[in-house]
Amino acid sequence: TIDLDRLMGRIAALGRIGALPGGGCKRLALTPEDAEGRALVTGWFRDLGLDVHTDVIGNCWAIRPGRSGGAPVVMGSHIDTVATGGLYDGVLGVLGGLEVIESAIQAGIETERPLAVAFFTNEEGARFAPDMMGSGVAQGGLDLDEMLAKVGIDGVSVAEALAAIGAAGSHPVGALAPDTYLELHIEQGPVLEAEGLAIGVVTGVQGISWSEITVEGQAAHAGTTPMALRHDAGLVAARIAAEARAIADAFGPPQVATVGRIALTPDLVNVIPERAVLTVDLRNTDEARLQAAEARLFAQAEAFAAAEGCRLSRRTLARFEPVAFDATLVDAVEAGAAALGLTHRRMPSGAGHDAQMFAPRCPSAMIFVPSQDGISHNIREYTAPAQIAPGVRLLAQVALARAGR
Amino acid sequence: TIDLDRLMGRIAALGRIGALPGGGCKRLALTPEDAEGRALVTGWFRDLGLDVHTDVIGNCWAIRPGRSGGAPVVMGSHIDTVATGGLYDGVLGVLGGLEVIESAIQAGIETERPLAVAFFTNEEGARFAPDMMGSGVAQGGLDLDEMLAKVGIDGVSVAEALAAIGAAGSHPVGALAPDTYLELHIEQGPVLEAEGLAIGVVTGVQGISWSEITVEGQAAHAGTTPMALRHDAGLVAARIAAEARAIADAFGPPQVATVGRIALTPDLVNVIPERAVLTVDLRNTDEARLQAAEARLFAQAEAFAAAEGCRLSRRTLARFEPVAFDATLVDAVEAGAAALGLTHRRMPSGAGHDAQMFAPRCPSAMIFVPSQDGISHNIREYTAPAQIAPGVRLLAQVALARAGR
Ligand SMILES: NC(=O)NCCC(=O)O
Ligand SMILES: NC(=O)NCCC(=O)O
Repeated sequence: TIDLDRLMGRIAALGRIGALPGGGCKRLALTPEDAEGRALVTGWFRDLGLDVHTDVIGNCWAIRPGRSGGAPVVMGSHIDTVATGGLYDGVLGVLGGLEVIESAIQAGIETERPLAVAFFTNEEGARFAPDMMGSGVAQGGLDLDEMLAKVGIDGVSVAEALAAIGAAGSHPVGALAPDTYLELHIEQGPVLEAEGLAIGVVTGVQGISWSEITVEGQAAHAGTTPMALRHDAGLVAARIAAEARAIADAFGPPQVATVGRIALTPDLVNVIPERAVLTVDLRNTDEARLQAAEARLFAQAEAFAAAEGCRLSRRTLARFEPVAFDATLVDAVEAGAAALGLTHRRMPSGAGHDAQMFAPRCPSAMIFVPSQDGISHNIREYTAPAQIAPGVRLLAQVALARAGR
Repeated sequence: TIDLDRLMGRIAALGRIGALPGGGCKRLALTPEDAEGRALVTGWFRDLGLDVHTDVIGNCWAIRPGRSGGAPVVMGSHIDTVATGGLYDGVLGVLGGLEVIESAIQAGIETERPLAVAFFTNEEGARFAPDMMGSGVAQGGLDLDEMLAKVGIDGVSVAEALAAIGAAGSHPVGALAPDTYLELHIEQGPVLEAEGLAIGVVTGVQGISWSEITVEGQAAHAGTTPMALRHDAGLVAARIAAEARAIADAFGPPQVATVGRIALTPDLVNVIPERAVLTVDLRNTDEARLQAAEARLFAQAEAFAAAEGCRLSRRTLARFEPVAFDATLVDAVEAGAAALGLTHRRMPSGAGHDAQMFAPRCPSAMIFVPSQDGISHNIREYTAPAQIAPGVRLLAQVALARAGR
C-alpha cells in the first residue's frame, strides 16, 4: 500500500522549483533550478537513510540493501524538464520509485536483491542534445567525453554546467549496473485516455532522429533585391519545415516530424536572411521507415537549398534506433496489471526514455499512465492522482517481484 | 570640383565605427555606435564653422547661410545601418552633402538660399519599426509621441534609446523646413551595374508594407503528439514564408516579398512551437497591386492558421504608399546628368528613403549611383570611388542650381 498523498505532495513540492507563472515548470538540465531539484530529491533519499551515489555526469541513485546483495532492481527516470514543462514528465518515475521504497520500508517488506531509485542527467535533451544523455553515458551507449563537450542552446558545455552547479560525483561510468530497470512514466500522448485505459504496457520506444540543418544564403536588401537574385536562407528553412510535415503526412502514423527551432541571421525585417539554423525531429517505430523519412527530408532540403543558391550543412544531434523492451519483463508488467485488475494495453512509446538506454544492458521495461488530452511538454500536462496510484502500485508489484520478496 | 579623397577618407572613418570582423558595419539606430557616428559627423560639420541643429527625435542638420536667407536646400540621408550593413547606405548622402558644402566654401561659391546637410534618426527601421522614422516625424508624416513609444527588437523604446545616448535636441518637429530636398544614395540593387550606367534618376519610391504576424498554437511533445492533433505555430509561420515567395512569383516584378524575422517559442528541438512571430515585408510600385499582395498574404495566413487550429494576430510595423518625386526636380536631375555627360536612366527606388518623407512637403528627388552586384544590407556592399564621384558632382550641380549661385 502506497501513500498517494505523500507522493502527490512531493510532486507538488518539486514542481514549485522552476515554477512558471501559468503553471508547469522550467527546470532545464544542469541549471540552478535543476540543482535545487536535485537537492530536494536527494534530501528525501537521505531522509529514508539511503546512501546517495552520484556519477561523473551527475546521475544520482539511492539503494535500499537486499537480503542477499547482488545487482539492484532500479526504478528511475529524470527530474529535468523542457522550458514549457509539466510536473509529471520524469518526476513521476523518480518519486514513484521513491514511494515504492518508502512504503516497502514502512511495511517491513524486505527483498533478496537491493532496490534502487535513480534520476539521470539531461533526459530531455532540451538544453543539451542528445536526450537521454545521463542514462546513455551510464550504460555505455554514449561516450562520456563526447557528452561532456556538448554545447547547449545557451553556449555552455555539459562539463561547464556540471561544474557550475557541482552536480558531478565520483562514481565512474558503469557504477550503476542494474539487474532490472523499471520506469513509470506518463504516456505524454492521447492513446490511454482515448481508450479509457489505466495502464500502458510499453513494448519499446520508437526510433529518434534529431538533425540540425544550417542554411547559408546571402544577406541582401528586402526592397531592392529582385526575387530571381535572392539566396534566402530563411525561405529554405521554411520549405524544409513544410516538407517535414509533408513527410509525416505521406508516411502516415506512426511517423511524426517536427521543426522545433528556427534561428535566422540577421533576423531583421528588411534584410533577406543570410543564415538559418533549424532542427528536425523525426520518429518512427520502424527503423527502415525512419531511414526513408530521413533520406527524403535530407534530399529535399538539399534540393531546396540548391534551388535558392544556398549552401546546406547538417549534423546529427541525436540518433537512436527503435528499442524493444525485454519480452519476459514486458510480460511480467502485463501480468501484474491483470493481477491488480487494471485495464491496460500494450503500446510503443512515442517519447524517448532512460529505459531505452538501459535496455541493451539489462532487462528493462516501462509502465505508462494516462496524460490528460495527451498533452506533455506543455504547462497543461496533467495526470490525476487517481490515475497515478495504479501506476505506482503496478511499479511496486513488478519491482518487488523482480527483487524477490 | 569635389575632393574625392577627402570624401572617401570620411566614409572609411565613419565605417570604422561599428566595424564588423569581415568588413561592413553594424551601427543600429540610437546605439552607442550610432552615438559615436553622430559625434564624428557633427564634428566635421563644426569643423566647417557650421552650427549643428538637433531636433527632439535626434535628427541633425547644419546650415551654410545663403546671400538672401529663406528656406535651405537640404542634402541629407542617414548614418544608421542594419546589423549586416555596408559603408555606403545612407552615409554617402550625408557625407556627399557635406562634401558639396565644403567644396563650395573652398571654391568661394555663394548661393542665394542656404545650403544644408542633414542626417535623420533610424532610417533603416532595423532596430525600431517603422523605417524613415526621423524624417517622417520631422515632416509630420509620423506622429512624434507614437514614434517615441515604439519598442525595438531589444525591448528598448525610442524615447529610452534617445535618452541613453543623449541624441535628442531642442528643436521641435518641423524646425527643418527645406525649400528643396536632395538625396544621393547607392542604388542597393543591380540595375545600374547591369546596364553599365553611371546615374539613376530616381522617379519615386515603391510602396512598403511591413507586418508582424503572431501565431499562437499549442506546445506539445514532438515524439508523442499525433500529427492530426497538432497546433504547430512554427509550421504556420513556415507556410506563410513560403506563401510570401509564392505571391512575389505570381505577381511578378516589381512585387517583392521577404520574411526577415521568425522567432519560435519555446524554440526547443522536441517541443512543437506554441508561438511564432514573423515579419513580412511586401513592396510594389503600384498601390493597388501592393494592396492585392497584402490581401492575399493575410487571407492565406489566416487560412494556414485555421487549418492548423492556431490563432493569428497581425500588426502593421510600417506602411508607406508609393511616392512620386517632384517632376520638375526629377527633370532637373536628369538634365544635370546630361549636362555633366553622365550615362543615366530614370528608375524607381526599391528601398525606402528619407526623401520620400519630404516629398509631400517640398520638391524632393534622389540620385542613385551603382551598387556592386546589386548588394546592400550586406557587409559586401560596395561602390567604387570612381562611381561615387559622378554622383557627388551631380548632387553639387543640382543643389547649387536650386540654391541659386
Ligand atoms: N520523456 C520525454 O519527454 N523525453 C524527452 C526526450 C524526447 O523524447 O524528446
Ligand atoms: N535605404 C534603405 O536601405 N532604407 C531602409 C528602409 C528599407 O527600405 O527597408
